[in-house]
Amino acid sequence: MDAVSAKRSPRPRKQKFFDRHDEVIRAAARVFAEKGFRHATLEDIADALDITRAALYYYARSKDELATQCSDKAAEQFNEAVESAQRHQTGREQIVAFFRRYAEIICDDFGRFFVRLNIRELAEPAQIRTRVGQRELHEAVQAMIAAGIADGTLRDADQKDISRILFGAFNGIVRWYRPGSRAPSQVADDFLAIFLRGLTA
Amino acid sequence: MDAVSAKRSPRPRKQKFFDRHDEVIRAAARVFAEKGFRHATLEDIADALDITRAALYYYARSKDELATQCSDKAAEQFNEAVESAQRHQTGREQIVAFFRRYAEIICDDFGRFFVRLNIRELAEPAQIRTRVGQRELHEAVQAMIAAGIADGTLRDADQKDISRILFGAFNGIVRWYRPGSRAPSQVADDFLAIFLRGLTA
Repeated sequence: MDAVSAKRSPRPRKQKFFDRHDEVIRAAARVFAEKGFRHATLEDIADALDITRAALYYYARSKDELATQCSDKAAEQFNEAVESAQRHQTGREQIVAFFRRYAEIICDDFGRFFVRLNIRELAEPAQIRTRVGQRELHEAVQAMIAAGIADGTLRDADQKDISRILFGAFNGIVRWYRPGSRAPSQVADDFLAIFLRGLTA
Repeated sequence: MDAVSAKRSPRPRKQKFFDRHDEVIRAAARVFAEKGFRHATLEDIADALDITRAALYYYARSKDELATQCSDKAAEQFNEAVESAQRHQTGREQIVAFFRRYAEIICDDFGRFFVRLNIRELAEPAQIRTRVGQRELHEAVQAMIAAGIADGTLRDADQKDISRILFGAFNGIVRWYRPGSRAPSQVADDFLAIFLRGLTA
């Protein structure tokens, strides 16, 4: 996406670098998700970008470095999803808004990579940063649930369990979702309808 | 477990081999789950068993072979869980029975390994066998849900989505569960209570 627009409209060099950089880590995320981080090579990523290994080296020196940049990108998107969800009034509205966006993110390159990633694959500092980010994400969702219980839009149940159930069910989407079927936001709506209404006849 | 009993009571050599073999793949499952399949080495597994690399070689020649044996063990346990759940009368009872057992299995060595496994890590034939097994498992659970809808113990909703939600939420347990906290069957009961009742106030 960014790359295309970068080609169409000439931009100052710096801007161009960032566009290209975004394109590089997006390609890395796609290759990691397809081949698995373990099997993917820097050559695969260079090939996907149709650039040389040397050119790729200009953007990242190792798989670790690319993986870290991908997971940071995902974290950035998750934080934006939290912030925009928090603008909604009731806890229930916040949960619905957050998981609609969460589904979109994890069905896209960085989010899919992040959900499939075994965090132990990352270099030590990135592991720590990622775990902190995950905890903050879960805490933000638990706060939305608590708000919903407080404002009467959600039933009083264990906030930690509800958050674990929602993240587990949504993260599972990346295992079966294929583009072209339901839109991710539609999957989210269908899932949330089942969660909110329950399975009891 | 098997190893202990094997040491306590002398058994015919063949039986003894199988006890030891079970111990070996259980240790492998534990090491894979702890270090990640990618980072774990045959040395790590030999060390965990306090045997030599040569002795380990007697049971398995490669990480792939051990991984395949671990995932086959997990599949065996899942199938047993399906069969015993199917003995219950209503679809709702079947779902509750199955996921109580499923939680126990995935909080134990083989199940935890299986849920954490990236199937692409397995050798080609094992990948195919595993994917078939997974599909059969999902189909069995969808049949239990269909039975529950038919017998009026479960609300009519998309069976595939319900199955995806349940497996996703339960598979997520391995990400946070630590032995010594709630028993896995208790986690299952708490999760199922939330699913059955729903989140609406």
